[in-house]
Amino acid sequence: MSSKNKKNPQKPSQEGPSNPTPPPGEQPTQPKANKPIIVDIHTHMYPPSYIDLLQSRTTIPLLRSFPGHPSPRLVLLPSELPLLSHPSPSHPPGRPLTESYTSLDAKIAFMDKHSISISVLSLANPWLDFFSTSPDTTTTTTTTSPDTINAAAIKINTEFELMCQTHPNRLYFFAVLPLHPTTTTNLTNLTEIVSSLTTSTFPHCRGIILGTNGLGLGLDDPALDPLFHLLQDLALPIFLHPHYGLPNQVFGPRAERGEYGHVLALALGFPMETAVAVGRMYLSGVFDRFPRLKIILAHGGGALPVLAGRVESCLRCDGFLYKMEKEGKGGRMERSMGEVLRSQVFLDAVVYSEVGLRAAIGAGGEGGVGRLMFGTDHPFFPPLGEGEGEGEGEGEGEGQWGSVVVNREAVDGVLGEGSEEAGMVLGGNAIRILNLREEEGGEES
Amino acid sequence: MSSKNKKNPQKPSQEGPSNPTPPPGEQPTQPKANKPIIVDIHTHMYPPSYIDLLQSRTTIPLLRSFPGHPSPRLVLLPSELPLLSHPSPSHPPGRPLTESYTSLDAKIAFMDKHSISISVLSLANPWLDFFSTSPDTTTTTTTTSPDTINAAAIKINTEFELMCQTHPNRLYFFAVLPLHPTTTTNLTNLTEIVSSLTTSTFPHCRGIILGTNGLGLGLDDPALDPLFHLLQDLALPIFLHPHYGLPNQVFGPRAERGEYGHVLALALGFPMETAVAVGRMYLSGVFDRFPRLKIILAHGGGALPVLAGRVESCLRCDGFLYKMEKEGKGGRMERSMGEVLRSQVFLDAVVYSEVGLRAAIGAGGEGGVGRLMFGTDHPFFPPLGEGEGEGEGEGEGEGQWGSVVVNREAVDGVLGEGSEEAGMVLGGNAIRILNLREEEGGEES
Repeated sequence: MSSKNKKNPQKPSQEGPSNPTPPPGEQPTQPKANKPIIVDIHTHMYPPSYIDLLQSRTTIPLLRSFPGHPSPRLVLLPSELPLLSHPSPSHPPGRPLTESYTSLDAKIAFMDKHSISISVLSLANPWLDFFSTSPDTTTTTTTTSPDTINAAAIKINTEFELMCQTHPNRLYFFAVLPLHPTTTTNLTNLTEIVSSLTTSTFPHCRGIILGTNGLGLGLDDPALDPLFHLLQDLALPIFLHPHYGLPNQVFGPRAERGEYGHVLALALGFPMETAVAVGRMYLSGVFDRFPRLKIILAHGGGALPVLAGRVESCLRCDGFLYKMEKEGKGGRMERSMGEVLRSQVFLDAVVYSEVGLRAAIGAGGEGGVGRLMFGTDHPFFPPLGEGEGEGEGEGEGEGQWGSVVVNREAVDGVLGEGSEEAGMVLGGNAIRILNLREEEGGEES
Repeated sequence: MSSKNKKNPQKPSQEGPSNPTPPPGEQPTQPKANKPIIVDIHTHMYPPSYIDLLQSRTTIPLLRSFPGHPSPRLVLLPSELPLLSHPSPSHPPGRPLTESYTSLDAKIAFMDKHSISISVLSLANPWLDFFSTSPDTTTTTTTTSPDTINAAAIKINTEFELMCQTHPNRLYFFAVLPLHPTTTTNLTNLTEIVSSLTTSTFPHCRGIILGTNGLGLGLDDPALDPLFHLLQDLALPIFLHPHYGLPNQVFGPRAERGEYGHVLALALGFPMETAVAVGRMYLSGVFDRFPRLKIILAHGGGALPVLAGRVESCLRCDGFLYKMEKEGKGGRMERSMGEVLRSQVFLDAVVYSEVGLRAAIGAGGEGGVGRLMFGTDHPFFPPLGEGEGEGEGEGEGEGQWGSVVVNREAVDGVLGEGSEEAGMVLGGNAIRILNLREEEGGEES
């Protein structure tokens, strides 16, 4: 941890996105010539209408207040469910909902502190999944009309678009989609909503954020083909992000009792969920059917860079798939998983180590450095102080966030501080791949 | 795949370990001076008494015959359970039980074909776990007396020891332990069995193979402390190997219907299981309590090399663990996970890619190359021919196994064919770490 936050009472209270007028002094920052332009493609917010949704809920995700804790707690993860049923007075589940999650000014302050020129905002997990069928049967599925879900998505995307407009050249966003089981029976609505993302209504949209749940059956569900088809045609990249981790049983009874905090669910469960989701997409032939679909994987692709070779080897040695192939019933992909990683997959650089960063680069083959994009995962993983930073105003203290510094240092350590390649990963790739600065001409990857 | 097996009718039928007299011409091979000594530390067998056990069972693991298939099928994995309940006549679950699993001569032939000088044999999964409490409640737990389980372990270890004695200087083994819930209430027996492994009764034992189940609660169960204490004191390394993978639900309904063969369970589930097991051991303080315990991780440590940094970052940012630390109730480890990987953990090189191999080396820090040991995972992942190799006599065909070649090529590709470092990974490290050639003097790592 590089530093701990200190309360700065001189700083005026930050306004949330409900008051999106840019305050004086918050004009777009021009990057200095001798410093790399830093772009953060992995940074989350909960806009006002989403907070309203969370407040109305009785199961995860939800906001709940606990006696003796000044901030309401944001309880998100399936791994937090056992603790929600039997909360400890001193250690309630979840994390304090600070303004880092809700305030655009806090986001901009965080960006300035870390010399981030541009952020590509996205709704934090679990998006609108709770309206759909959850893979975890312990979470209650809310039954809501498709129109209501569609309206929620449009509202949230509009809130993100307005945020971006208040800070020209500094903010873009990945849109949220209203996925629910009726999506595929009412493709007209989905097509309309997705298509609108590339119109003048949403000039700052640069892709969509997607969880692994799909319509409740995962991303290898053929019912998603129309969506993938549409995203490919519109050249809208998917930012694939985990939420469910792995079932609690995997982490054992001590984790279920909360003894390890969130560490296993977040550190191992999240990246493994991503790798499994992509493995399922691959084996179901999504990448063969949609070879121009672009997918950006959170957390450096999870465990995938080091496991892709094992996927290929297991595929070659699988007796059942071998038979299927011999019988002309499929069983083989047109390209190896490595080829897919090198052509359709991009990774963020949120990996927290040089070993992980090298693997993420390696997964992309010779052009691997050109496929990696810096991110912070803000506002998650804040520096900790008294009360887990409650009332500390994370992002407003003096020091940079340790969770950000370690990723920045990994880029500099692997590629060389100030090098052209470090500049690509820190910002150049995102600008090119996501076409963030149209006035400079976006080269398509 | 480098080649497909061809039946070689000229070769005499191979004998199983029930007839362990070395046939003529099977004398120890002296490695040539200009070639690296290759040691395979990850190579499995089912000795006769274990086959008897499998034949007596009605749920996994089991042997079952299916009409139209000449070999009985070996059904092992939780992911195969749905297919066991509703087997397809053309695609029954499991894999054919060929002599590669049971015959010592087939093992030696495989070694000779791949220029492997020394193999460190181990019982293949799931060892004796089925006598214990399984984490998968769909598998029936057999209730057997502790004496019977202990006797089974001793018998199997004795069979392995006898195999090693028939091929001096070529074979060693990792022993199996009789773990069951009464282990900790009857430490006398466990101590006796484990201690015997370092006596003249088992001169070829070089450690123990361990699954992730422990006594049914995983390897972060404090009831295992006496075992870890004993293994540390006896300097017996653990070869940690996965078996359970991840719960079927993680891979979704299409995988449960068998559409992807074994690929997801083996390629992703197995290495993730290993990484989670080590993460749990780490957070429970096993490595702090037993800093001289040596642990060798199968499949290059699974996903751990690239996720260790994320574990450390999540630990630093965990609000609950932070509070625990502030209150003097623990919550922090004495060393980072990276430090543990660099001091107590060794990895096999069964990773199937240069990207994965580089990460495995990187996880070990500056001395990473010295902590990696070649392996094959034989007899799993055979080359496929008609009938999944049934009756093909894998290991007896002309070509080398593709699953072995890819790992060998990764070593040569990353470290340079014929280089000193490649020689270390291919054999030198294993000889040193596992003290395989006492006449040459074993340098302790």
